[in-house]
Amino acid sequence: MLEERPLLLLSNDDGVDAKGIRELISALRPMADLIVVAPDGPRSGSAGAITSERPIRYSKVQEEDGLLVFKCTGTPVDCIKLAFHTLIPRTPDLVIGGINHGDNSSVNVHYSGTMGVVIEGCLKGVPSIGFSLCNHSADADFSATIPYIRAIVSKTLEEGLPVGTCLNVNFPDTADLKGIRICRQTDGRWINELVERDHPRGGVYFWLTGEYKNLEPEAEDSDHWALDHNYVAVTPTQIDVTAYALMEQMKKWKFDV
Amino acid sequence: MLEERPLLLLSNDDGVDAKGIRELISALRPMADLIVVAPDGPRSGSAGAITSERPIRYSKVQEEDGLLVFKCTGTPVDCIKLAFHTLIPRTPDLVIGGINHGDNSSVNVHYSGTMGVVIEGCLKGVPSIGFSLCNHSADADFSATIPYIRAIVSKTLEEGLPVGTCLNVNFPDTADLKGIRICRQTDGRWINELVERDHPRGGVYFWLTGEYKNLEPEAEDSDHWALDHNYVAVTPTQIDVTAYALMEQMKKWKFDV
Repeated sequence: MLEERPLLLLSNDDGVDAKGIRELISALRPMADLIVVAPDGPRSGSAGAITSERPIRYSKVQEEDGLLVFKCTGTPVDCIKLAFHTLIPRTPDLVIGGINHGDNSSVNVHYSGTMGVVIEGCLKGVPSIGFSLCNHSADADFSATIPYIRAIVSKTLEEGLPVGTCLNVNFPDTADLKGIRICRQTDGRWINELVERDHPRGGVYFWLTGEYKNLEPEAEDSDHWALDHNYVAVTPTQIDVTAYALMEQMKKWKFDV
Repeated sequence: MLEERPLLLLSNDDGVDAKGIRELISALRPMADLIVVAPDGPRSGSAGAITSERPIRYSKVQEEDGLLVFKCTGTPVDCIKLAFHTLIPRTPDLVIGGINHGDNSSVNVHYSGTMGVVIEGCLKGVPSIGFSLCNHSADADFSATIPYIRAIVSKTLEEGLPVGTCLNVNFPDTADLKGIRICRQTDGRWINELVERDHPRGGVYFWLTGEYKNLEPEAEDSDHWALDHNYVAVTPTQIDVTAYALMEQMKKWKFDV
């Protein structure tokens, strides 16, 4: 690979064969050398999970000029750790997760394997971005997102990101994108999260599902508002989760040990 | 169960049979009615992962006065979602994760299944606390932690926690605890995270492991400093991960779409 081109490390949580990561590869190949290390199958909802009980393996599935693709038996975060440990020739200029099939705005950041990738990149000290489209279908149409992804990647390569921060970028499912809004995480909640089914040989089991309830639908600075109004939602995100105001408050608590 | 006693929902990521959750149950039974919904085996490093590709099942493993214990095939977060959906008679007064066998301070919060439990409780609007001991052994000695756990639970029941915040409590592995410090999340990094092994039938595989590197060992307000100096580290934690300073900065970026 040519040293002067940027090197981007890509992963996702929908698996190496998902349309979203294939579209991401096509979009970014003209701009950079790419190393892709992605799970060998779907890992939706992996969050920051790591594999501790089982070993991890990988294999190369594609090698072309400026593009190397590996699949890995582990979680999205495992993929990034494996890449840094053994698969990348130098520290990448960016770590990118996506394009996810489904919304990772609001509280979904806490369940998202795509954002697991991004937070792991950030923990490694590399500027990192997650891209997600609010459409779960395997054959979702990502075409409207491509010019925005190129612009956001290009600008982030130029500006960098402060240490300990990363970007969570979500696209509404429309061909008619109104532009970019820099947002904060929306306060929302999942309800009706499980559906019960009878097993043919007796007993019940549950599928995780649910409906998202926006607790602040009028908040114009929130990422979900941007998506509801056909904007690209860029939510700057940080790995320091300390609640500083509560920290000061709790210093006054007297514990009765 | 008597209505006037607090109701606590407990889970963990080491599994329902782990010593840590058994010690937590013993410690809290005199104070409250307990419902335990924990994974049926080890789920270390589950973070906020949810199970989307497979169904979830549960079964009751213990029923005594003021204590109900269920095991569940899912992740720690699945356990909490299942409990809220179908296993608890009313909203619990607290959700508690632990006692974890191992350190969840610093950046470990992003991988921790124990903190997955806690963040899920917090997302459900319930004050939530994670307890972890810096000792991975299956037969770790939790006895020094018990009076502190009771004091922290009791005080949190009395004071409550602001919406969107929770507590990450870590204990150093010592019988000689120096008291409680209210801390912030330490900036640290994992290095040498994978170990390679040869497979007897050819090829290699990897185990996730690693060494934690503290990037600010002198920071007296950080949770890792507290642990290094034999204090109980209480790190107030929040679910809003927006990087507000970067948000303001990025509003000036011009994207070339």
